[in-house]
Amino acid sequence: MSMKGNGVVAQSGGPTAVINNSLCGVIQEWLSNNFEGTLLGAIHGIRGVLEDSFIDLSRQKKENIEGLKFTPGTALGSCRYKLREEDYRKLLRVFKEKGVRYFFYIGGNDSMDTANRVHQLALEDNYEMTVVGIPKTIDNDLPCTDHCPGYGSAAKFLAATVLETGIDLKGVLNNNRIKLMEVMGRNAGWLAASTALARRTEEDAPHLIYLPEVPFSKERFLHDVQETYQKLGFAYIVVSEGIVDESGRYIFSSSGKDSFGHSELGGLAGVLKELIESRVGTKVRCNVLGTAQRAAMHFASRTDAEEAYMVGKEAVRLASRGTSGIMVAFVRDESAGYTCFPANVELSKVANVEKKVPLEWINAEHNFVTEEFIRYARPLIRGEVDVPTRDGLPDYRELEKYSDSLSAVKS
Amino acid sequence: MSMKGNGVVAQSGGPTAVINNSLCGVIQEWLSNNFEGTLLGAIHGIRGVLEDSFIDLSRQKKENIEGLKFTPGTALGSCRYKLREEDYRKLLRVFKEKGVRYFFYIGGNDSMDTANRVHQLALEDNYEMTVVGIPKTIDNDLPCTDHCPGYGSAAKFLAATVLETGIDLKGVLNNNRIKLMEVMGRNAGWLAASTALARRTEEDAPHLIYLPEVPFSKERFLHDVQETYQKLGFAYIVVSEGIVDESGRYIFSSSGKDSFGHSELGGLAGVLKELIESRVGTKVRCNVLGTAQRAAMHFASRTDAEEAYMVGKEAVRLASRGTSGIMVAFVRDESAGYTCFPANVELSKVANVEKKVPLEWINAEHNFVTEEFIRYARPLIRGEVDVPTRDGLPDYRELEKYSDSLSAVKS
Repeated sequence: MSMKGNGVVAQSGGPTAVINNSLCGVIQEWLSNNFEGTLLGAIHGIRGVLEDSFIDLSRQKKENIEGLKFTPGTALGSCRYKLREEDYRKLLRVFKEKGVRYFFYIGGNDSMDTANRVHQLALEDNYEMTVVGIPKTIDNDLPCTDHCPGYGSAAKFLAATVLETGIDLKGVLNNNRIKLMEVMGRNAGWLAASTALARRTEEDAPHLIYLPEVPFSKERFLHDVQETYQKLGFAYIVVSEGIVDESGRYIFSSSGKDSFGHSELGGLAGVLKELIESRVGTKVRCNVLGTAQRAAMHFASRTDAEEAYMVGKEAVRLASRGTSGIMVAFVRDESAGYTCFPANVELSKVANVEKKVPLEWINAEHNFVTEEFIRYARPLIRGEVDVPTRDGLPDYRELEKYSDSLSAVKS
Repeated sequence: MSMKGNGVVAQSGGPTAVINNSLCGVIQEWLSNNFEGTLLGAIHGIRGVLEDSFIDLSRQKKENIEGLKFTPGTALGSCRYKLREEDYRKLLRVFKEKGVRYFFYIGGNDSMDTANRVHQLALEDNYEMTVVGIPKTIDNDLPCTDHCPGYGSAAKFLAATVLETGIDLKGVLNNNRIKLMEVMGRNAGWLAASTALARRTEEDAPHLIYLPEVPFSKERFLHDVQETYQKLGFAYIVVSEGIVDESGRYIFSSSGKDSFGHSELGGLAGVLKELIESRVGTKVRCNVLGTAQRAAMHFASRTDAEEAYMVGKEAVRLASRGTSGIMVAFVRDESAGYTCFPANVELSKVANVEKKVPLEWINAEHNFVTEEFIRYARPLIRGEVDVPTRDGLPDYRELEKYSDSLSAVKS
């Protein structure tokens, strides 16, 4: 296979602290290989492709590209947009017009479905194109990979926050010594589970963790909270935003749906706060970190950042060999400590599949995780990223968004 | 004045990231001076004194004392407890019984009132005792001091979080591009104001900041949000939990009161979210960091940590000279960059007085702060604390709580 033609890289969906590490890996690997074409960055993800909005990544300053390694958020911009049938046709048309032969899509489940559809469409159309998916999700719910880039950093920040706010809670004698933290994760409890890493002794937070993988019973929950509170004099509870009742309905769901038809979550902490206050009779205070949990590069996992960079580079290496219709995945090797190396898996096996926390990693009482989970998660949060600061704040970088048209990009 | 007699140090109220730095300063300065008596730590603040619950701080391992410099929360424990008249009598009785001649109280407005009452009572009783208040509050609302230990670290973490979640917000095109962050601060807006440090360009978060110092008008608020959203396509709003309407009533206040009779706040973000969604018609997502903002030692301000240590040491130095009834304060010197040195102020001038953000540091539109505020706050967040980590998480330390009785402490 020739290495002619241009490339497009796009970021999709919710950011992670390290999604730009993958972008950096793609750009640096592209520039150091013998690709003859130009690498374009789609602005705001797939919307950028549909709306012909790109930047030429080879024109970026080297230090800004390198700066992506310590900058959270989506440097190219991303979107949440459900593609319609005609959009797929348009994508292929734009790719053909721009002479795009390589498409790198950094995203989660929905994005791997999109990448797979583009791959299939190109095949049907006999348009020679290499499509490679690059995993990204704080939710850690992509299948066929040991874990996902973005998870380790969110897990590290959440565990550190539970550690710190747990020490805070334990220290203060007052009338609101029940703490509730609501954590992201629509259908998989990986993030909520990760807060268990903060706990070293029985008194340490968190004391109770509730995951969407097992049905949530209000009565059992109240019993657990009461028991912990009576024993310790305080209680720290972590709940995944996506917990469901016996019949699979979300404990809290606003009436709205997001653009993929998923129920929009939020407000669960308030519901459980009221439940505890009315039934246990003790005041509850809530921490709802929101998007802070997916953006906290200031305390990101170095392991995660390096692995996110690695999948970006690996995607380009695979593409240079003409491998298409795949997602880069992680394989863990524990023969000598923890190491992680890249593999790949067919997009069709990943698209729209959610990997959940194995039931055997959840305790019998359904209110904590087992040691096996801890062993799995511990290596993923190791190390810190060296973020430069200016005047006491992280000195994050931006890509320059050249306003000149890219219509001159040769096809 | 002789340096005979024992000392008691206690921590009060809500923790800060650096309150243990002040404790460390007190212990280390006590141990390195010629005090003949023992330094006792009251467990859970003033409650420890009332309930005869102390630890002997001279028996602590040196590395645990040194570890206080990077450990958040209250290492001795604190409480929220409004002292009754008979409690004051009891305090003095306990101090006499234990031969306590020095009392160091680390706390905020309410605590400085308590310290002052103890000081007055000892005077009336002709009991020779030296009482020194050590300022501590993330709210930065103590008067007669340039700023308060604890503020810089909370401000730094909040500004970093707004910076990171602002980048997150800007990047993602979706249907909820209005972000609301609720920040602590009952009657003073110092913390909400500090998030302005994150902003370098017009597009940067935060775009709007609302403080309790000026009345909050829902209509003006909605107008501001609408205008920003139309201009940028997204909007990042920071509100202080204590904002009030024209007649001084909290915009949100649950029916409960805390033990000092202050209204308990929380839930404001939800109220404003609904307001915006119904009137502007755009979905809003909230970040409510809760106690994370006062516990985040993992990204604390080194300036703040060092100054918190300094006030602890200074308190003991003042006590060694017999100065009683005072609080250590900060004076700023900007003759050659920023430097800060300790001064002291009478407790009676500090007790129960709240220092608010000067009105001239709030813009005419009442929706942001001026450059003067930025100049004031910028130096306070500089530098990071070197926190050791273990397995990817901060390796915080604990004091050993010896269970043996302290009745043997000689009076």
